[in-house]
Order: sequence, then structure tokens, then C-alpha cells
Amino acid sequence: MTRPREQREFFAVRTVGEALAGFRPAHRTGTDRVLLEEALGRVPAEPVRSPHALPGFARATVDGFAVRAVDTYGVSDGQPGYLDLAGEARMGLPPDAALRPGAAIAIATGAPLPPGADAVVKVEHTQSTLPGLIEVVRAATPGEGMVRPDEDAAAGAELARPGRPLRPADLGMLAAAGVTEVLVRVRPRVAIVSTGDELVPSETAELETGQVRDATAPALAALVREAGGEPSFAGIVPDARDALEATLRRALAGGGAAAPGDFAAATGDSASVGCDLLVVSAGSSVGARDETASAIASLGEPGIWCHGLALRPGKPTLLAECGGVPVIGLPGNPRSALVVFRLVGMPLVRVVGGCTEPPPEPSVRARLGRDLPSAAGRLDVVQVALEEGVATPLFGSSALLSILARADGHLTVPEAATGLPAGAEVEVTLYR
Amino acid sequence: MTRPREQREFFAVRTVGEALAGFRPAHRTGTDRVLLEEALGRVPAEPVRSPHALPGFARATVDGFAVRAVDTYGVSDGQPGYLDLAGEARMGLPPDAALRPGAAIAIATGAPLPPGADAVVKVEHTQSTLPGLIEVVRAATPGEGMVRPDEDAAAGAELARPGRPLRPADLGMLAAAGVTEVLVRVRPRVAIVSTGDELVPSETAELETGQVRDATAPALAALVREAGGEPSFAGIVPDARDALEATLRRALAGGGAAAPGDFAAATGDSASVGCDLLVVSAGSSVGARDETASAIASLGEPGIWCHGLALRPGKPTLLAECGGVPVIGLPGNPRSALVVFRLVGMPLVRVVGGCTEPPPEPSVRARLGRDLPSAAGRLDVVQVALEEGVATPLFGSSALLSILARADGHLTVPEAATGLPAGAEVEVTLYR
Repeated sequence: MTRPREQREFFAVRTVGEALAGFRPAHRTGTDRVLLEEALGRVPAEPVRSPHALPGFARATVDGFAVRAVDTYGVSDGQPGYLDLAGEARMGLPPDAALRPGAAIAIATGAPLPPGADAVVKVEHTQSTLPGLIEVVRAATPGEGMVRPDEDAAAGAELARPGRPLRPADLGMLAAAGVTEVLVRVRPRVAIVSTGDELVPSETAELETGQVRDATAPALAALVREAGGEPSFAGIVPDARDALEATLRRALAGGGAAAPGDFAAATGDSASVGCDLLVVSAGSSVGARDETASAIASLGEPGIWCHGLALRPGKPTLLAECGGVPVIGLPGNPRSALVVFRLVGMPLVRVVGGCTEPPPEPSVRARLGRDLPSAAGRLDVVQVALEEGVATPLFGSSALLSILARADGHLTVPEAATGLPAGAEVEVTLYR
Repeated sequence: MTRPREQREFFAVRTVGEALAGFRPAHRTGTDRVLLEEALGRVPAEPVRSPHALPGFARATVDGFAVRAVDTYGVSDGQPGYLDLAGEARMGLPPDAALRPGAAIAIATGAPLPPGADAVVKVEHTQSTLPGLIEVVRAATPGEGMVRPDEDAAAGAELARPGRPLRPADLGMLAAAGVTEVLVRVRPRVAIVSTGDELVPSETAELETGQVRDATAPALAALVREAGGEPSFAGIVPDARDALEATLRRALAGGGAAAPGDFAAATGDSASVGCDLLVVSAGSSVGARDETASAIASLGEPGIWCHGLALRPGKPTLLAECGGVPVIGLPGNPRSALVVFRLVGMPLVRVVGGCTEPPPEPSVRARLGRDLPSAAGRLDVVQVALEEGVATPLFGSSALLSILARADGHLTVPEAATGLPAGAEVEVTLYR
């Protein structure tokens, strides 16, 4: 920190790509067992395997007659074959007996085949002209009209892999296998600290001129939830170095509730009990940002990883790792803070929570509605409204949150580009 | 129901598009007030308006000096202007006094402008060479370096619209406006009834040959949650017309818990308290499907809307409206049931829950990895694995749930097409 400011910034500004690839804290949340009905979207901590083969028995997939395929070879409409009708498979019950050669039993879709049967002839390929006999007019091949006992899953097969959030069909497979609990990663606890002398809790009914409700923390909390984390509000802190440092230490260490008067106003659950990721939305002025950086730097080793991102909006972003916990210092403007958190913070929540295969993000191709200037060397994130395949950039001060609320999504102009012409095909990441 | 079967089916099979456009039950859930921190993804029941202008005062967006723009006209590097430094705007506090002509006050990003000031000159465009004076080297235009009191939202402006699930940025806007509660639609209660003599609850540890755990209900419950609904398990019913009808009536009317022994096995919370949507996963055999149709038809007017969909898998789908509640009869195969529910059921959950602007679904363009045959006249839904931009169809019996679990998403072959050639560009809907 003794280098001149210009030089320090030169060394410590990274691209978003460098941050995603290079800032990889080792911290991971612990594990927990959850009931299957609460496991949607949770991240398995280990492979989930089938305790036995599925469906576990040979099962009809059509309505018809269970047969030995060999007994039907050579039959046709002109030369039907005849099999003894030796009973009926009962749905949900074990077969009465093995199938005799030359015999068939009636079977409905889903019922178990008797031992000896290796195919099911569709009812449409049979006729019953004589009592006790069925006439087969189409030859069956072994395995036709049925699934094998291990065709849905072999015993020990991996039904869900670690790192990928569980999807509805995964829950179906686990239910089919009788898995009632899953070992998952604990949701990352993300502590959110808001700083700024002007900030008051969002539930404040009447504002004085100069006061602003904390809009960033509730929106960040929602993004944390979308990334699979558990947000907690660790308080609003004035732009004062000591108060900020004390609050950050408390959020990291889980030192219990802040004493009343410790800082100007505390929102929500200030009784933080430690966290897996610490998010600080910095004050908006340059001075406040410097104080935030200084407070974060004091939290412990290895400290600050980068002092800024080659990103607009969002340049004044800090990434740090303090005592094993990743820390993100966000810009003071709510819109900039939310852009950065979506690009860099949500992936970090997932990393810490053991999610190695994030769910796909919705996106759509569109035509750019107007020229879009951009400076080379930084990633531009541009909010857009979409209508009939045309993406119209929404411009305005990054102090305006309404631009983000009005946007259908965003597009990015890469670091190497100096803008995009009207009519260019762009990929718009859609908000949901 | 007196028409011959062939004729009835001819009239009652619809395309998926016809079902989505034409089957529009009028039923909607009621409304409820929820706290802002619980409102993510909830559907506002009415427009949410800003009680006052936002930010509510003129606010600096740069660090610098609040001025009257007219006092800076004509200045330049060669001809700087001089303004009296009359103090400092304090962050979060009302201005001390109006700005005198010819004066400037120091101001940080986010602080309130004093009355009389209409611009903020960036600190980079000033010098302070003499005590009590600042030198301005760039002219300011009115409105520069600041946001107006109503620039983020006018008083009464719509901050969230009815029918669109609330997104993180919406929660930020509502927090900024001091909105602490939102009137939202109650989550649709979706009762799930599973039928089949072979079915046992998914928590059954040991299976007899012929028994199958209920995999469909847990997976359906997850899809219901994804669509914003609240699933409840209304039981597993054997393929017996009377037991099924009794269970469906109970699920619809909220007649309390099923008496023990009423049907073979009940899973989960069978104490249903009525529902906004009733989902029946039918038995897998033709006979069981007929019994399901007959039971649904008995539930009340206007009754069955269609007896099948021109869809594979998923043809034996029933859509009905009984006593004002929409009812979906799903095919017996878990995979078919889940395909139909994703295509037709999730949109219905949203309709009933007042969601008119569903969140975007993730999708990606890919090249088809092999020829895909398809019969004209029906929509084919094909599960695919994606790798490096190639979509490989996953084939197998629709009795196999594992095919859905292995899939990254699905593509559809439209009713008019008779297949797609290898290499065709396809749009794959991705699972999350």
C-alpha cells in the first residue's frame, strides 16, 4: 500500500474474465442431509447412487401378451401362431409362475413379466378367436414391448452428480430408487453490509432530504437466493473507517449482535453468526470507497486480490480473501453494485456452495436498436429493453436503479471492441 | 359420452398450441400481503406505485462542486472562472442553505444539492489555488453531474406491474420507495393424485416384484414449485374407479384427510384442503386411463375439454374443468407425464396464479447430431444431450425416466414436419 496510487491501480485492475478464472477462494460450505422433498435446486456433495436396479423387474411397456419371443418366430397375418392363454399378470404383484413354452399371459402396461417371458406382443398384433388360445399375427423380438430390470438404472449407477443442482427429473429418479435424503452442500451464508452516511433502512417511512433508503441490500439478497445462498443483513454502517471495520469483523467472525449505537442504523438480522461470503456495498464517494478498501485490507491475509475491474458500470470493485472467507467490495451505486454482483458475486456464491455446474441462464439473440459507443479495454454491461427482436439500450446515470428495473436483460460489449453498430446481432442475457 | 369411441377421440384430440390458447380456465387464486423480503418471484396482484418521487431530492452523481450552471458559462482552461467556496454538502443531511449566485459548495457523490444549485462540476474540472475560492475550467450545463428529484421515479409511478413475478431489481426499487409489503397472488395449491395398482410411496424401502415407487409425484411437485405453485400430495390410488373418484372429490373440495384404508397407500400430506389445480397421473394401462377419464368426467361441469393431445410422448392427456377448478389427467409413464406437465401444466399453474408474464426459459441453438424421424400431425418432444453445440437425441421407451434425467434439455419437432435431418439448426429448451 506504499506504492503511489496510480501505480497501485495499474497493477490491481483485472478483467471480469481474469477475476472469474483467477480469484478462486478455497472456502466451501459444509454438508447437510435434506429430505428429498426439500432438495430441489440443492447441490449434492457426493454422487447419489441407485441402491438397486430400476425398475428392478422386467416390465411391460405395452398392453398385450407376455410371450417367449421364440414361440412367435415366423408368424404373420397369413400364418398366425397360436399360444395357450395361461392367465394374466397382475399389476403390482409378483408373477404367479414362470411362463411355459408355447404359452402367453395377458399383461397390461407396467405389469411384471413372468420368468421365461422375454417379449410382450401388442394386443393389436393378436386376435382371440378361440377360448383359451390367442392368435399372434406378428413375430416378437426378444426385449420388445418391455424394459429390462436394470434398463432405467443399474444397481450402483450414479443418479445425481456432485456439484450440479438437483432438477425435477433428478428428484424423480431418486424417488424411484427410494432415496429419501440427499447429502448436500449447506447454502452459503452471505453477509451483506451496506455503507453510507446517507443510507437508512428500507422500511423507513419518512425520509429527510439527503437520506436514501437502502435499496441495494434487498436486491442483493434476492440475487444471493437465486444463486443458492442464504443472505443476511449485517447492518448499515456510516462512512467511518472504524465502524466499518468493526462491522466487517463481526460479520466474518460471527461475534453476535451489534451493540445499539455501534453504527447509525442496523437493518434486519444484525445478529450475524459468521458467513461464507462477505459483501460490502461501499459508500458512493471516492473517499468512502478508499475507507472501505482500507477496512477490507485490515481484515486479514491474504487480503485484497484486485482493486478494480475493467468493467462499466462497476470499476470500483474489490475482491479479497480474508481469513479464508471471500470478500467483495461493491461500488456504491445500486445499479453498479447489482451488475457486478450478477457477473462476479453470484458465481462466487456458487463456487463456495460447491456448485460446479450452474443452471443455464436464459438468453436471446436480438438486433441492436442503435449505435453503442464503448471504450476499448473494459467490458461494458448495457441494460436493454427488448421488443420484437430489437434490443434498445437504456441509458442514464448509474445512480438510477430504475434503468435496471425497466430492463429485460443486458448485453455486453467485450473489452476488445470499441462499440457496436445499430443492427448488430447481440446476445441478450435475460432477467428472470 | 354416448358417441362411439373413435368419433369422440377424433373430436377431442387437440394440438398443444390449441390447448395453450383455448383451454383458459377463469379460476384465479386470491391475494395476500407479503413482506418485501419474501416477495422474490411472487406475482403482484395490482400495480405497485411509488408513494413519492425518487430519489426525492437533487443528488450529486460525481464528486465535485455544486454550482449554478449559469455561473460557469464561458469558462475554459485559458479563462477559468472563480466561485466562492461557501461550504460543503453533508451526506445524508438536508442542505444548510440555498446556494448564493457566484458561490459553490463542495459535494460528494450521493449528497443533496442545495436549493439554487443546478449542476455539479467534477473535481477534475476545478483547481483550488486560493483559499475560499475555486477555479472552474470547464463550463457546466444545467443537470450535469446530478440526478433530478424524480429522475429514478415520479410520485405515483408504477414500480412493478401486476402479473409479472418480482425480480431482484424490482425489490430494489420497492425498497428505495419504502414499500415494505406487496399485495400478491396466493401461490396456486396444486393437488397431485397418483394412480396405479403398482405404485407405492417413494419412501418405501423394499419393493416386491411388480411394485414401483411413485417417482412422478415428487418430480411434478418440483415443477409446480418452479412455476410458482404450492404442491400437495393427495395420495396414491389404485386403479379402481370409485376409489379414484372419491380421492379426486376430496382433493377438489378439501374434505380433510382420507380415512385409513380408503385407498391402498397415501403419501405425504393427504389432508388436502382443496386446490386451485388438480393433477392426476393416470395409471399406465389403457384400462386405467379410461377409468381416470370416467372419474374426471364425473367431477362436474363443464367437464372434459380434450381427451388427448397431438403430442409424443403425452398423447393420453386429459384437460378438464370441474366446478371451476382446472384438472389435468397426465399419462401414466413418468417421463410422458413430466413432458406434458412442463408444456401444458406449468403454464396452467401460472395462469391460475395470475402470472401473465412468465420468466424467460433458458434455451440454446444447436446442431442436430443425427436424423430425427417424426410423424406429421403431432408435436414430438425429443430429449437431447448437448455437447459442444451438438444436440444428440436420447431415445428409449417412454417408461424410462432416466432419459429425462440424463437430458440437458429438449427440442420439439413441429406438427407440420416429418422429421429433421442431421445437422439441422434446432432450438433446445434447457433444463435448470
